[in-house]
Amino acid sequence: MTDLLSLDAVAAMDDATFVETFGDLFEHSPWVAERVARARPFASVTEMHDMMMGAVEAAEDDEKLSLLRAHPDLAGKAALAGELTHASTGEQASAGLDTLTPEEMERFTELNTAYSMRFGFPFIMAVKGADKARILAGFEGRLGNARTDEMQRALAEVGKIAWLRLLDRVAPAPTGKLTTHVLDTAAGRPANGLPVTLHRLDGERRTEVGRFVTNDDGRLDAPALQGADFTAGTYEWVFECGVYFARTGTETHAPPFLDRVPLRFGISNPEAHYHVPLLLSPWALSTYRGS
Amino acid sequence: MTDLLSLDAVAAMDDATFVETFGDLFEHSPWVAERVARARPFASVTEMHDMMMGAVEAAEDDEKLSLLRAHPDLAGKAALAGELTHASTGEQASAGLDTLTPEEMERFTELNTAYSMRFGFPFIMAVKGADKARILAGFEGRLGNARTDEMQRALAEVGKIAWLRLLDRVAPAPTGKLTTHVLDTAAGRPANGLPVTLHRLDGERRTEVGRFVTNDDGRLDAPALQGADFTAGTYEWVFECGVYFARTGTETHAPPFLDRVPLRFGISNPEAHYHVPLLLSPWALSTYRGS
Amino acid sequence: MTDLLSLDAVAAMDDATFVETFGDLFEHSPWVAERVARARPFASVTEMHDMMMGAVEAAEDDEKLSLLRAHPDLAGKAALAGELTHASTGEQASAGLDTLTPEEMERFTELNTAYSMRFGFPFIMAVKGADKARILAGFEGRLGNARTDEMQRALAEVGKIAWLRLLDRVAPAPTGKLTTHVLDTAAGRPANGLPVTLHRLDGERRTEVGRFVTNDDGRLDAPALQGADFTAGTYEWVFECGVYFARTGTETHAPPFLDRVPLRFGISNPEAHYHVPLLLSPWALSTYRGS
Amino acid sequence: MTDLLSLDAVAAMDDATFVETFGDLFEHSPWVAERVARARPFASVTEMHDMMMGAVEAAEDDEKLSLLRAHPDLAGKAALAGELTHASTGEQASAGLDTLTPEEMERFTELNTAYSMRFGFPFIMAVKGADKARILAGFEGRLGNARTDEMQRALAEVGKIAWLRLLDRVAPAPTGKLTTHVLDTAAGRPANGLPVTLHRLDGERRTEVGRFVTNDDGRLDAPALQGADFTAGTYEWVFECGVYFARTGTETHAPPFLDRVPLRFGISNPEAHYHVPLLLSPWALSTYRGS
Repeated sequence: MTDLLSLDAVAAMDDATFVETFGDLFEHSPWVAERVARARPFASVTEMHDMMMGAVEAAEDDEKLSLLRAHPDLAGKAALAGELTHASTGEQASAGLDTLTPEEMERFTELNTAYSMRFGFPFIMAVKGADKARILAGFEGRLGNARTDEMQRALAEVGKIAWLRLLDRVAPAPTGKLTTHVLDTAAGRPANGLPVTLHRLDGERRTEVGRFVTNDDGRLDAPALQGADFTAGTYEWVFECGVYFARTGTETHAPPFLDRVPLRFGISNPEAHYHVPLLLSPWALSTYRGS
Repeated sequence: MTDLLSLDAVAAMDDATFVETFGDLFEHSPWVAERVARARPFASVTEMHDMMMGAVEAAEDDEKLSLLRAHPDLAGKAALAGELTHASTGEQASAGLDTLTPEEMERFTELNTAYSMRFGFPFIMAVKGADKARILAGFEGRLGNARTDEMQRALAEVGKIAWLRLLDRVAPAPTGKLTTHVLDTAAGRPANGLPVTLHRLDGERRTEVGRFVTNDDGRLDAPALQGADFTAGTYEWVFECGVYFARTGTETHAPPFLDRVPLRFGISNPEAHYHVPLLLSPWALSTYRGS
Repeated sequence: MTDLLSLDAVAAMDDATFVETFGDLFEHSPWVAERVARARPFASVTEMHDMMMGAVEAAEDDEKLSLLRAHPDLAGKAALAGELTHASTGEQASAGLDTLTPEEMERFTELNTAYSMRFGFPFIMAVKGADKARILAGFEGRLGNARTDEMQRALAEVGKIAWLRLLDRVAPAPTGKLTTHVLDTAAGRPANGLPVTLHRLDGERRTEVGRFVTNDDGRLDAPALQGADFTAGTYEWVFECGVYFARTGTETHAPPFLDRVPLRFGISNPEAHYHVPLLLSPWALSTYRGS
Repeated sequence: MTDLLSLDAVAAMDDATFVETFGDLFEHSPWVAERVARARPFASVTEMHDMMMGAVEAAEDDEKLSLLRAHPDLAGKAALAGELTHASTGEQASAGLDTLTPEEMERFTELNTAYSMRFGFPFIMAVKGADKARILAGFEGRLGNARTDEMQRALAEVGKIAWLRLLDRVAPAPTGKLTTHVLDTAAGRPANGLPVTLHRLDGERRTEVGRFVTNDDGRLDAPALQGADFTAGTYEWVFECGVYFARTGTETHAPPFLDRVPLRFGISNPEAHYHVPLLLSPWALSTYRGS
């Protein structure tokens, strides 16, 4: 990963530098950056992105359509010919689109054709970190949409692509954090003394990034991750529920129905608070994004 | 794994062979097998075990106490001296109790001493597949019990040890099965077309044992495992929720909060029906043992 | 309630009678009925409605707009002047729109004006059984929509109004039913022997329509309601959880956190299967529409 | 309700007054009060009760048995003869035990006899506010217990009776409160602007005790009840989910599956924090006692 720009550095750029730096967040469409350059300073990457999406929404219909049409097909001719933008090349590769079998290639070609004949613009999806199955499912889920709905959806995907590109360049404001809370729903009280580890998952790689024990309120004493340590990506809690049940004298089967419990989740906005708790009984569990 | 006896073979044994074969299910206590030999035939391993536990419950108090006292300390002198029964040796090793550090050994010795001074019998726990943290937590959870409660709890653990030994010797009746069901709680309908894999976990080893797609009712067309294929142990569903949301056109973040969702659970009785469903929205999930 | 037509009687009508009978399901727009008359027979009210909605979707844009514009304002001038269709009069009265205070009337007038200036058609909402707070919230929730989205949403509301009118005239196919299932998530087993009553709620009136006890699988022996007895409306289960916990010897506080537990829910399609279960521990509960 | 004593007043009593005042919390057993008189002052009613239960636990086995035997049968001869203590009379009446039919009376007599023959002490249950069905279920759930377990359970019920009597005499410390939180699990964010009312239920009587709207974090701006206003008893939240869904533009059926949602729960300890949240989607809900 290259060094990230600070929000201060973004604020200090002259307009031309700003547009040069961020003109490609929206594929071949520097006008988006141009229209928000004067709205600086931005308090957060979230705000910077919101402003840019506001500029897209406020644009004329033909500008929006041009923006959509500026995108390459997924696994299409431009990709084969090596003519993608630098960003697109990496994104498509991260989803395995650079190593399709001939059959898969044919399927993508068919779907790209069907989609662009129906809507008049290419299929756009924020594919970074996705896999082929999810992308193909995305085609299936959107091919039947009404055109106005699909245009809106495509613009939302453009926004997500820009968001992911932005996170590769600008350091988020240090407002984000990840917290948890374990409640014992059979006993009606916080689950204290429960060991928890947190892992970061990058494809097949798995890195432990924290090791905790819940306190008397069933919480960790501090956020598991916060500020610069809290980055977008895929994470997994592993809750040692078997240890907790043993410690509280709760009888379980052998092996216990719930023992070492993984909960996997994705973080898209590292400036936000993600509360990802566990409601636990010996025979049931729930989780959700809380606040 | 050695070949398992059939329930028919168990039924056909003469009494002496039955007692010889199953006399050690309960540590140094062949009287349990003796008292149920005439109750044969057993329709299931569950019934065989229930009968044996009935014999234990019906025994005199001093017989129960002798049964408890027939057990070795966990990681105790008998283990060090290689004097454990064959079954106990394997069980303690599976929990890593044969490779304790000196500090851990000292901790176990302290706890064993404290426990047997308090209760007059050794600490008993069905440790097969557990780890040190869970066993130490078990000590902590039970040392404070009242003696009558703890005696009952210790007998329950004896029963679980016998159950696990029994499953190593007799083939279960083919009544067990594992099923699932995925409901989309944001849309209020079954989640169809959702890819699911099932994995078996043996320590660090992970084996895929099935690959499915949910049908229109959100279920698999047949049990994921049943009969002889359904054995006790640790399993993990992996639900491809990201694919499902893409297919239904549900917009998610990048990455999605819930994408590839593992649910890990233990199966203790392979003759039973385990229904382990998923209640799913883009931002929340629940599971439980259902019926 | 007047007698309902059977689906057979609907099938047997000549086209003119069909259109005369159902021409007003869609406000002042008999063309919808005309276009589906030849699609008879209908296997269900659901199918009849689906066909009609298909005709609306397939209509020209100006026909759709005319359909929307054929609707009166909620609590508007037509209502004051007694010029609503018979169906609209009853629907608006059921939501209390015939007894607004002057201040409320003024608020509705303002919102109607703002809405129709923005979108070019009146605010349409299936208000039968709603109350003023929900209707006002509906204005708030939709005034900010994009016009194409809102037009689609307005047509969906037209569809719901037609659906409710249809249920007042044609007897549903006897395919619907209401079932439940109670799982004890602390014990990991079905909650058997739990008394349940079912109530129907009509405004302030509350009628007990069934009294049950869960069986060994935690279910009722038969659907709580099915066929002709299962009508659209608001229902409430009352689960006697305190009795269940007492019967299973589960200790609870005084009073128990969960004792007599009501779960209230609405049924919109009496031809469908509604499974409304309860996941229960002494300190937590969940419900959902299942299948 | 008579005036409650303050904890300060309890602290200021001389020992004899203290024993006179609280000697009957434990039926005909003033020794419990005697043994804790010197442990004053108590910081809370919870602490006072904990101390008393500690004295019971520390008592000799024959004292415990005498304590159990000092209790009257439920709906038994003493009740018929008007020989109950004042407190017992009120408690039994609150559960309807003073108006049994002859058949019910016979059933209670049978169960009382079976129970005391089995255990050697009368069936004890904290019946205040319970009904006959729950009490009969309690007999059923406990008659099969082992004697040592049942003795412990009976002492726990004695403790609950004493707790309820204590709350009738001493004002709790003002540490208790009731809070909630509504999360939209379909949208992954707090449910703001959702109207909630809180009701207190006394038998058939229902009193609205608060009216709130959730704030931007899905919470109420302050506890719904706290300090002296937060008393033990049965409460019901009513969440206006239909209004929330309308306001957020979420399409629902007609009627919505979840519209006006009641959640009923019991508060046993007015010195504690009860967090009773709602996890909500258009088709599912959960609640639990949180912290």
